[in-house]
Amino acid sequence: MYYRIVLRILGLLLIFLGGAMLLPLPFSFYYGDGDYVALLISSGISLTFGMLAFLQSPRKRDLRPKEGFAVVTLGWVTFSLFGSLPYMLSGTIPSFTDAFFETMSGFSTTGATILTDIEALPHGILFWRSLTHWLGGMGIIVLSLAILPFLGVGGMQLFKAEAPGPVVDKLSPRITETAKILWLVYLGFTVAETILLLLGGMSLFDALCHTFGTMATGGFSNYNASAGHFGSAYIDFVIILFMLIAGTNFSLHYHWLKGDFKSLWKSEEFRFYISLITGVTLLISIDTYMNVYGDTFETIQYTLFQVVSIVTTTGYGTADYEQWSASSQILLFALMFVGGCAGSTGGGMKVLRIYLLVKFSYSEIVKMIHPQAVVPIRIGSTIVDRKVMINIAGFFVIFALLTVIGSVIMAFMGLDILTALGAVTATINNIGPGLNKVGPTDNYAFIPDAGKWFLSFFMLMGRLELFTVIVLLAPSYWKK
Amino acid sequence: MYYRIVLRILGLLLIFLGGAMLLPLPFSFYYGDGDYVALLISSGISLTFGMLAFLQSPRKRDLRPKEGFAVVTLGWVTFSLFGSLPYMLSGTIPSFTDAFFETMSGFSTTGATILTDIEALPHGILFWRSLTHWLGGMGIIVLSLAILPFLGVGGMQLFKAEAPGPVVDKLSPRITETAKILWLVYLGFTVAETILLLLGGMSLFDALCHTFGTMATGGFSNYNASAGHFGSAYIDFVIILFMLIAGTNFSLHYHWLKGDFKSLWKSEEFRFYISLITGVTLLISIDTYMNVYGDTFETIQYTLFQVVSIVTTTGYGTADYEQWSASSQILLFALMFVGGCAGSTGGGMKVLRIYLLVKFSYSEIVKMIHPQAVVPIRIGSTIVDRKVMINIAGFFVIFALLTVIGSVIMAFMGLDILTALGAVTATINNIGPGLNKVGPTDNYAFIPDAGKWFLSFFMLMGRLELFTVIVLLAPSYWKK
Repeated sequence: MYYRIVLRILGLLLIFLGGAMLLPLPFSFYYGDGDYVALLISSGISLTFGMLAFLQSPRKRDLRPKEGFAVVTLGWVTFSLFGSLPYMLSGTIPSFTDAFFETMSGFSTTGATILTDIEALPHGILFWRSLTHWLGGMGIIVLSLAILPFLGVGGMQLFKAEAPGPVVDKLSPRITETAKILWLVYLGFTVAETILLLLGGMSLFDALCHTFGTMATGGFSNYNASAGHFGSAYIDFVIILFMLIAGTNFSLHYHWLKGDFKSLWKSEEFRFYISLITGVTLLISIDTYMNVYGDTFETIQYTLFQVVSIVTTTGYGTADYEQWSASSQILLFALMFVGGCAGSTGGGMKVLRIYLLVKFSYSEIVKMIHPQAVVPIRIGSTIVDRKVMINIAGFFVIFALLTVIGSVIMAFMGLDILTALGAVTATINNIGPGLNKVGPTDNYAFIPDAGKWFLSFFMLMGRLELFTVIVLLAPSYWKK
Repeated sequence: MYYRIVLRILGLLLIFLGGAMLLPLPFSFYYGDGDYVALLISSGISLTFGMLAFLQSPRKRDLRPKEGFAVVTLGWVTFSLFGSLPYMLSGTIPSFTDAFFETMSGFSTTGATILTDIEALPHGILFWRSLTHWLGGMGIIVLSLAILPFLGVGGMQLFKAEAPGPVVDKLSPRITETAKILWLVYLGFTVAETILLLLGGMSLFDALCHTFGTMATGGFSNYNASAGHFGSAYIDFVIILFMLIAGTNFSLHYHWLKGDFKSLWKSEEFRFYISLITGVTLLISIDTYMNVYGDTFETIQYTLFQVVSIVTTTGYGTADYEQWSASSQILLFALMFVGGCAGSTGGGMKVLRIYLLVKFSYSEIVKMIHPQAVVPIRIGSTIVDRKVMINIAGFFVIFALLTVIGSVIMAFMGLDILTALGAVTATINNIGPGLNKVGPTDNYAFIPDAGKWFLSFFMLMGRLELFTVIVLLAPSYWKK
């Protein structure tokens, strides 16, 4: 392990973070909540530590996968550690455990909160909270489209084949170029959504906070009633549209924005994503139309919002889905594991993996009927390599095992069955709200400290596609 | 498809079933409940249809996998259809749906019941009910050790490698020899358990009924309070011992009974099975000792009983585990999917599959750290073929998908989340009792008819290792 290069990159990231901490200042001053002091001190601390780490002069300058894993995982941890400073220094979240949980929830674009009264927070801190989402989403796009494919994590190499990125070719120098293009797309959508929300009557502050939560598929709102606060169909549909966009592979956006409109529909993953959302929305609408709304427009507005919010792992709420029927709830619960498309800011197992696993199951059945048949699994015109398919199956098995083990551990801390299962599912898939006591109208405040640390770890693992984090826990990783 | 040979074999099975229907007669006469008429008529009907089918003269006499799948699946369905006659003709279960559910639950060794007052049934019918378990168990042993390995279902071919059967070599003539030896082992344990239960003070009737339920890992008891009726530690431990035996690969039993005692401990699956039971029992005991029993002996007695009853998918109850803590319940719930060893009468996904999936997950992590490494998965000294591993992963994925889809469908019929999930889990894994309204102290009577048929189908699929049944649903299976 070349520690110095890892430290140097982490230093660079910290400097960037320290800079980002100054962005909420205008709102802090404008609203005059006095939280600018905490933000300035936090920024100063981050910049100082960042400089110190950056000044390391590494002997080796090339990144191997080994260092790649370390940078990615430690990067997220470092951000969450320093990113929790504004909460602690402003006294809004005095407990380190709670502040870390909230920050990890932000950077991992989860959106689970320990706050019981969000609206009581000063505006600068609230802006910082939403900004952690946006920065986390930025990180995820580069990670999933430029870094992980090279590390070969859980079949991520395949995600390139389905939607080749702009210039991705080699790790290192080109990452910067790729990142720039993708960030431009991300920034463009951010500006567009902000304008559309302003047109819907939101203040600039509200519009930015909700745009950050949407584009990162995070789900933090600056209101206790989440996006439901506004009670506007226009705003709901704007958010639905941009959640859909944020849950789509950003390489696809790059292509259709360049004029290649067919690229969207050519993508099997995108077609499956849209079909799945349409199908589940229709199924749940039967229930919500008959039992809750009794009005076609309202049914579609609230049902579609919730389905898109869950499948993209955003976690915004305009309706309390725990009041819906059991079948609707199980469907939403199953969707939690699907998640967004590969290369999107969405969490979960990713649409492409689920799609391939369905194809894989089908191929195994065909092989039972025709034992001699060769049944290649295709995505577009590419045949999926056997190794990649095995990798994805392994990802699924580990994901399932972790969910079960995690639920047992959370139940051991005193949570009931549904809450334990809901909390683990909502964090490993980076959604936010889960079931029962961590449902859409609740928060994570009551969970014991050990549980909060454990769930923070699950947010991290889910966000970084499991393997990236697990690898670091293996003793053989640290051997020379 | 050679229909005639399939029909002929089904006829032979029906003749065998008609004969078996005469076995409860001594008890019917002894207790004088008058249910002998229903049994005699049912036997007559089964024998007549059996003869008619058996008299088909097939042009082709060789069984291909195609016919193999049909015989296995249709065999279980035929047994459940004709086996429900005694219930209907005696008027004890007048509804065809209920009678079919109860019979499929018997032959699939599930043990889920629609009866609200079991003790009200006449003794001949109660004996028949338990006998369906025992016959189902008999079928499973041959199926899993002699037939499925040749059909290559879900990696079953591997189960031979781990514990080679007595003489299994070719499909067809040798099956009979293999079956004879394995049935002798099955019969021997049945006699042994019956004697030990008699020594514990049970009547011959009770002893036989509970032995049938144990050896088949079925779980039907002739008492409303299940095995807890007797309130005897001796009886509990006898049943624990024989549940453990029934959940072990019967090929292993054959080997150690022949004097090769080391064969048991040489089996990695058996070691994992025992370790898993020990580990989970200890974990749950912490909870049950502190919160329920407060006494070491009682804690072990009741906890071990429940853990073994669930992991072997027997489903007998001596304690209401829904009163235990949430973590204990999630652990038990997870165990439901593990099931017995391959080649046992236990259901579930099978210990060997889970063990290999754990090894598989580990190997995928190692491959992440050392991308060039070749990480073979071994069981004993045999390297598990890649195709078999993929097959097992496919089995896991399909199992998980079916559980989710099944739960949604059951919830659509009006069941709450936990009940829907519990009912599907308890039937696809052939356990019996599930969660909430189908918990250990409840029954399946209240489920709507469509739900009972659906769950019967899940019992069948679970029992026959999914693929065997699914293959028959594929249109291409029926093409020439």
